[in-house]
Parts: sequence; C-alpha cells; structure tokens
Amino acid sequence: MNAPSPAPLRERPSQETVAAVTAALAARFGNRLVTSQAVREQHGSTLTWVPNQPPDAVVFAQSTEEVQEIVRICAAHRMPVVAFGTGTSLEGHVNAPFGGVSVDLSQMNRVLAVHAEDLDCVVQPGVTRKALNEHLRDQGLFFPIDPGADASLGGMAATRASGTNAVRYGTMKDNVLALTAVLPSGEIVRTGSRARKSSAGYDLTRLLVGSEGTLGIITELTLRLSGIPEAISAGICPFPTIKAACDAVIMTIQSGLPVARIELLDEVQVAACNAHSKLTLPETPLLLVEFHGSEAGVAEQAERFGEITAEFGGGPYEWATKAEERSRLWQARHDVYWAASGMRPGAKVIATDVCVPISRLAECVDETKRDIVASGIVAPIAGHVGDGNFHTSPLVMMDDPDEIARVTAFIERLVARAIAMEGTCTGEHGIGQKKMRFMEIEHGSAALELMRSLKRTIDPDNIMNPGKVLAV
Amino acid sequence: MNAPSPAPLRERPSQETVAAVTAALAARFGNRLVTSQAVREQHGSTLTWVPNQPPDAVVFAQSTEEVQEIVRICAAHRMPVVAFGTGTSLEGHVNAPFGGVSVDLSQMNRVLAVHAEDLDCVVQPGVTRKALNEHLRDQGLFFPIDPGADASLGGMAATRASGTNAVRYGTMKDNVLALTAVLPSGEIVRTGSRARKSSAGYDLTRLLVGSEGTLGIITELTLRLSGIPEAISAGICPFPTIKAACDAVIMTIQSGLPVARIELLDEVQVAACNAHSKLTLPETPLLLVEFHGSEAGVAEQAERFGEITAEFGGGPYEWATKAEERSRLWQARHDVYWAASGMRPGAKVIATDVCVPISRLAECVDETKRDIVASGIVAPIAGHVGDGNFHTSPLVMMDDPDEIARVTAFIERLVARAIAMEGTCTGEHGIGQKKMRFMEIEHGSAALELMRSLKRTIDPDNIMNPGKVLAV
Repeated sequence: MNAPSPAPLRERPSQETVAAVTAALAARFGNRLVTSQAVREQHGSTLTWVPNQPPDAVVFAQSTEEVQEIVRICAAHRMPVVAFGTGTSLEGHVNAPFGGVSVDLSQMNRVLAVHAEDLDCVVQPGVTRKALNEHLRDQGLFFPIDPGADASLGGMAATRASGTNAVRYGTMKDNVLALTAVLPSGEIVRTGSRARKSSAGYDLTRLLVGSEGTLGIITELTLRLSGIPEAISAGICPFPTIKAACDAVIMTIQSGLPVARIELLDEVQVAACNAHSKLTLPETPLLLVEFHGSEAGVAEQAERFGEITAEFGGGPYEWATKAEERSRLWQARHDVYWAASGMRPGAKVIATDVCVPISRLAECVDETKRDIVASGIVAPIAGHVGDGNFHTSPLVMMDDPDEIARVTAFIERLVARAIAMEGTCTGEHGIGQKKMRFMEIEHGSAALELMRSLKRTIDPDNIMNPGKVLAV
Repeated sequence: MNAPSPAPLRERPSQETVAAVTAALAARFGNRLVTSQAVREQHGSTLTWVPNQPPDAVVFAQSTEEVQEIVRICAAHRMPVVAFGTGTSLEGHVNAPFGGVSVDLSQMNRVLAVHAEDLDCVVQPGVTRKALNEHLRDQGLFFPIDPGADASLGGMAATRASGTNAVRYGTMKDNVLALTAVLPSGEIVRTGSRARKSSAGYDLTRLLVGSEGTLGIITELTLRLSGIPEAISAGICPFPTIKAACDAVIMTIQSGLPVARIELLDEVQVAACNAHSKLTLPETPLLLVEFHGSEAGVAEQAERFGEITAEFGGGPYEWATKAEERSRLWQARHDVYWAASGMRPGAKVIATDVCVPISRLAECVDETKRDIVASGIVAPIAGHVGDGNFHTSPLVMMDDPDEIARVTAFIERLVARAIAMEGTCTGEHGIGQKKMRFMEIEHGSAALELMRSLKRTIDPDNIMNPGKVLAV
C-alpha cells in the first residue's frame, strides 16, 4: 500500500488556535456558536466510563453548506471536528479528547422528502427515529431500525446502529440507500442513489456508514422504508434457564421463522425492569418476540414459535396484538439501560455489545453468566439474540478501583470469548474510545492497517473525530 | 484529501518484464503457468463489444498463499494482475487492456465449511453458484443470488452481482459476511466475521464487494445462506402492454408483497425465448413471478398478486408448483442472453443494465421501448423489475458503423434517462471497461475523486485490473 506520511498524533489545539477558530465561527454563525462550559460539557457527555471531555466550542449547523463552512474553517487550523446528534451513543463518540469543535446537527431536523411509492425518504441528520416514524405514520410506512434510544438518524448511520428489528429488517448498513457528507477537506460528497441496487463503483455509502464521524460528517440520508405490517403480534415467554431461552432462539432462527424481533432479558434484567417500569413480569429469563405480516401469517408464525419454545420448557405465554398492549410489553425492553442504571444507585452503567454466530449464542451467554457470578459483579443481560447479539451491563462504582479492575478484566474475557467464537466486539454500538484495543485482535494487523490507510488518505490531518475507532 | 502521487497511466509491460515474470511464475507453478495463445485469448474473452485483449500469461492458483505469491511476483515488476473466475461477466472485467497475468481461480473450487446451524458457509472463489447449491441441497439450504450465468462466487462478489432473487434476498452486498483477499501489496487481509452484524470499524467487506478486482483478489468468502422454502410457487402472467406489466410490478412492490422473484420479458424477448428454448409462451409482455414461504403463505401471496395484476389487465395465468415445471418456466428467463443472441445470427449482444426507483420503472421502460423503435435497432428487454432493474440487449452487426453509432447513442440516452430518474448506469453488471465514462455523471466529481483516492492508496502502482472501473 501507498504510505502517505503518518497522520500526526493529536494534541489539543493551542489557545491561539481555539481563539482564532471560535472568532471565525462566531463571526459567521453569531449566537449559534456557543462556548459556555455547560453547553460544552453537555456535548462531551458520554455514557461510558471515560470522563467527560468537552469540546472547545459548539456550533449549531443548519445546512450541508454550513457544515462545509465549519469544516473548512477548522481544517484551515487543523482543529478537530466532532459531529453531534443526540448524544445517546454508548462508546464516547461525541467526547472531544483533543478538544475541537462539536458540530451540533440537531437543528438539521427536516424530513426533506418522502417517496411513499418507492418506500424511501430523504432526511437531514438531526431527525430522530421517533420523529421520522411520527412523520411517516399517516402514510402506512415506518423506518424499522430501533436502537432503543431516540437517536438521530445521522448518528445511527455513523455508528451502524441496529437494535430490536434487525433480525428481520437489517441494520443501518442495509437501510441507507444514499448519503451526503462533508469530507475533512470540506468537499461535499454524494454517495449512492435512490435505485435499490447498483454496481457502479466502490460502495462509498457503506464506507461512511459505521465510520463514526472519522471520515466525514453525514448531512443528508436517503433511507429505505417499510410498510407498516397489516398485523403485528407480540409475546413474552418465560424460560426455566437462560440456556433454554437461547436454545429456543437458535432453533427459531434455524427454522427460518421470519420473526421481526426476538429479545432476551435475563432474570436480573427482568427484576430491574419490573422495578423501573412498574411491571409484574415473571423474574426468570424471558424472550420477547414480535411477528409482522398478514393476519393469517402472524397467527401461523406465533403457532410455530409456540411449538419451538415448548420443546425447551418455555411458557406460559403472554400475547398482545393491540398497539397499547404491545407498547407496554416493549417498554420493558426499551428501558433496559435506565432500569439497569436504577438497580444500583450511584453506579455507572457500562454497556457491552458482543455478537456471535447464532449456534454459539447459548454457550456464549451461559459462560458469560458464570463469569459474572465468578467476578462478583452486577451485570444484567439483555440482547438482540436473533442476531446473536447481547449486552451485559456491568454496574460499576467508579470510586472502587478493585471493582473497576474486575469489570475491566471481565470485559476483556467477554470480548475474547466472542472473538474466539468467530464473533465481534461490537454488534451495534461501535468502537468509539474504549474498544480501539480490540480492533487488532478482531481484524488482524493487515485489515487494521488497511483501515488506517483509508483514514490517512481521507483525513490526512486527523481532524475528524480524532481518538475514535483507530489509533491512527 | 491527501494526494499520493498520481498512479501512472498504464502501458503494456515491456517484453523483458513479461519474460521475467513468466519465468518466475513458471519456476514456481510449472505447467500451471500457461502462455499459449488459445488459453490467453480464452481468458481475455469478453461479452462486450470491446475486442478480446488477452493477458500475457495465465496462472492457475490453488490457494490464498499461491495468489499472494503471484501478486508479489507481479508487484515486484509492476505487472498487471487480472482475476478470472468463469469469464461470464458482461462488462469486460477479465480483459487485459494493458496485458499482465490472468489469475485463474477455477481450481480454487472447494466448499470449505457449511455451518448449517448458522445459515452460512465458507467457500473458495472458484466455486460456482450452481456447484454450491448442489452441495447444499441435502441440508435444506440454498444460496439465493442467481445472476443467470453459472458464475463463480468470487466473481459475483467482485461485481456485486444480484439477479432474479434480489428483490427478496438482496444482492452480494447483503449476502457476503466476510472475505479473505490478497491486496496489491501482496498482503492477505481478512474482513468481517461470521457474526451477523458488527459495528467494529470500517466496512472493508463492502469496500471489496463490487470493486471488480481493482483493489484486491478475493480468495475466500463467507456467505449467508437461506433455508429452502417449504413451498415455492411460480407463475407466468401475460399483459396487454409493457406499461401495464410495469404498473403491476410497482403496485406489487408498494403493497409489500414479499415476492421472491418478479421478472419482465417484453414481447421481443418472449419471441426470442420461444425460438431458442422451444417454448410456446404468448408473445406479449410477460411477468414471471415466484413466491417462497409456507404452503398457506404462498397461496395467500399468489392470490393477492392475482388481484393486483387483474387490475392492470394481466392474465390468464400459468402456475407451477412442482420443481420440474418451475424449472421449465424459468428456463426462458435464464436463457434470455442466448435467446437474444440467436435472434440475429452474426450480431453481438450488448447487455445494458440500468436501475431506477420503482415508481419510475414504467415510464423508463416505456420511453426506452419507444427509443428502441425510433433508433431502428433490435433490442429485446428483460429485467429484474422488482428492483427497478432492467436490461435491453441491442443486437449489433459489428461491421456496420452506422448501426454501432446508433446503438452507442441509444445507450447514452438510456443511461442519461436512468440517472435523471435518480437511478444508476448499472444495477448488477458493474462498470468494467465501457461504463467508466458514466461514473462522473452518476456520482459527481467529488465522489469519483474519493473513489480514485481509495484506489491510489490501496494500489499505488495500479497493478490490479487496470483499465477498469476508474480511469485513475
């Protein structure tokens, strides 16, 4: 490979640089350039155990061209640029370890077009998934990717998000048709088209999806939509053991049942959800499922699923077909993060995110569960198990170095276990700040060096979200 | 962006270089290095109107490590390297305009692993799709991507192939989980994993899929498999006009009917298929459809489709559920290329491949059909219309410069029409040699320059399949 001069390891910009950039941005953007401590800290907010690392300034952009101007001003001063959507990412993506300018995209929140007849839409990056679905509802369409949080669609693309519906509808990788992005050079690039498929050159769309703001800032997205199913049926099924629940998932997937969602909560997580959401779920391992289709199709799927789960001792079921009842069932799943957080007041929730081939799921979850016990840590489990993806959420007292050490060691073993099973260190949260050390283990040195060379080519001065994804 | 020194425009290697490389390869690979005129010409075979451009030598590789050795020998001499699977690509991908070494991967034809429980398999690149499906059949699994030709899976990944099943099962982009490839530097890179999803860094798998051998040679693929459906039902439905057929397709897709295949043949193509495959299909525009699912699900889908098509004057149907009958129906579709070829003995078949958003399909096909008539050319139409993708196949007498000019102008208008409708110049065939001129029109200069910079970074000496995809 060609070896462009190595990108400089970042340092924080000098006071003079910060002053020059903020002056230039203030002159152009007026009171949309903010440097107050509170706003800066809010934009460095992080749900990891990395401390808050605020940017030097925050600027609220309103158009692709404004993002271009901001990037050009920053590029001229080699000032870091960090894209900000809603701040709900779980790996410190919006932190600013080397300072710089946080580009807040929340005011770019317009749905620019809905092409109902093509099942696609064009949105600005600050539109959240709930806002989009609200906008679409009258047209019988929805955007299926649901990571739980009401994240911005730009942020979801940047982290290659997925969530509960991915087992049927895919991830952001599969549901972004085209993008507009501002590159580190300040150039505006448009990738893809509204065609459903294309073989016209390199797949720049998929290069940007999952690049976590390190290759460019996404300023417009063309998204694939789905029709709201004629019938939806949701169920909750308790199991005697977590292994039985996982075995039922494996057989469900292997049998080709087109389940729309299939989620696992372990008994620890269920107890937390009961407490947080005032529910009365049985405190055993649970599977939450949802089927989408015609009335007859949904009934047929539910019947088959019932047969499978019965083989593994699952039941009795609770079913819901009305929207409000389904929402109540799913509320527990959506609230897992906050429910876990409430289990141990004062503790930090550290979200893990491994994903393994489905055949290894029961084994991986089972070993992990035993590891949690052996490590003497508190860590509920929830997961998008239809994809082989599950989260443990260790609750850590940050003033206890011994506990931090035990959780750190547990996470190392969890990731090593998943990778040994041909899985990945992150199914959907991304690499961000604290998973960079797993990249070489997972990808090997040649693939990692290829990623680095792409980064150096596109962002030679390492201004785009430095300190994330790759230690360039 | 960083600007590595521009890659040199290629010239053919000198006689000395050819002699040195072939001597080194002969010393290492013995009679698996072939320089006979016949074998070289066979490896430069092309189904386009670009003349045969044979490589200087052909070497038959048997392992990833052998491909690595070949690439290293070639790289040391800046000798072009062209990957060869089955030679069925339609855009001259295997031609060698600057000479070099054709790396024939057909002996790398082993299925290395089938993980039935995970619905995936690992194959060498020379395995063809039919060979894989033969291998899988006893396990109730199949690989759904079907471009018609019995192409190699490495070649299908390299061109981001799709075909008849893509409307339901996606394209190679969606069905390749992981790859091993040899980069132009000779390094072996492994991308992705067997996990169903991952957010761990840049999507190198999708960067290689569709790169047409210009960024690396794929030497191993992990592919997603599907369960053979419990029930399959296939039908043929005639329509009074091509517009009526397209309108029926649009409504089918918009209504969310999960059709597995939906193919259009115009009356010209039907006549050609009748003649070639000894069929008695009604010589009007036809839709061929296939439904996959449970017995009840398939029956429900067929009924709904019948209702939709009746609205547009479609019918009467011919249905087939038994495997032999379905094969007979689909034989017509699989043979369109050869059937077209037989319509005008001595003519060259030039395959076009535009794809548009589904809402524009009827309009695009209709205008194209009128353009064919106005241009005084012979060009049957067939297409994967569920994706908005269709092919016209002008039959050109290569000794008639006036006809060549008319067909060339027709293709320019066809592509311009598709791009103006927010579509693409190629849905599935790739760019190869003759579509490079459409890249800037479709992607714009910024995206094209980004692609070029990726190529220059990964292949600074432009040894991998030079003269394809990008005029670097």
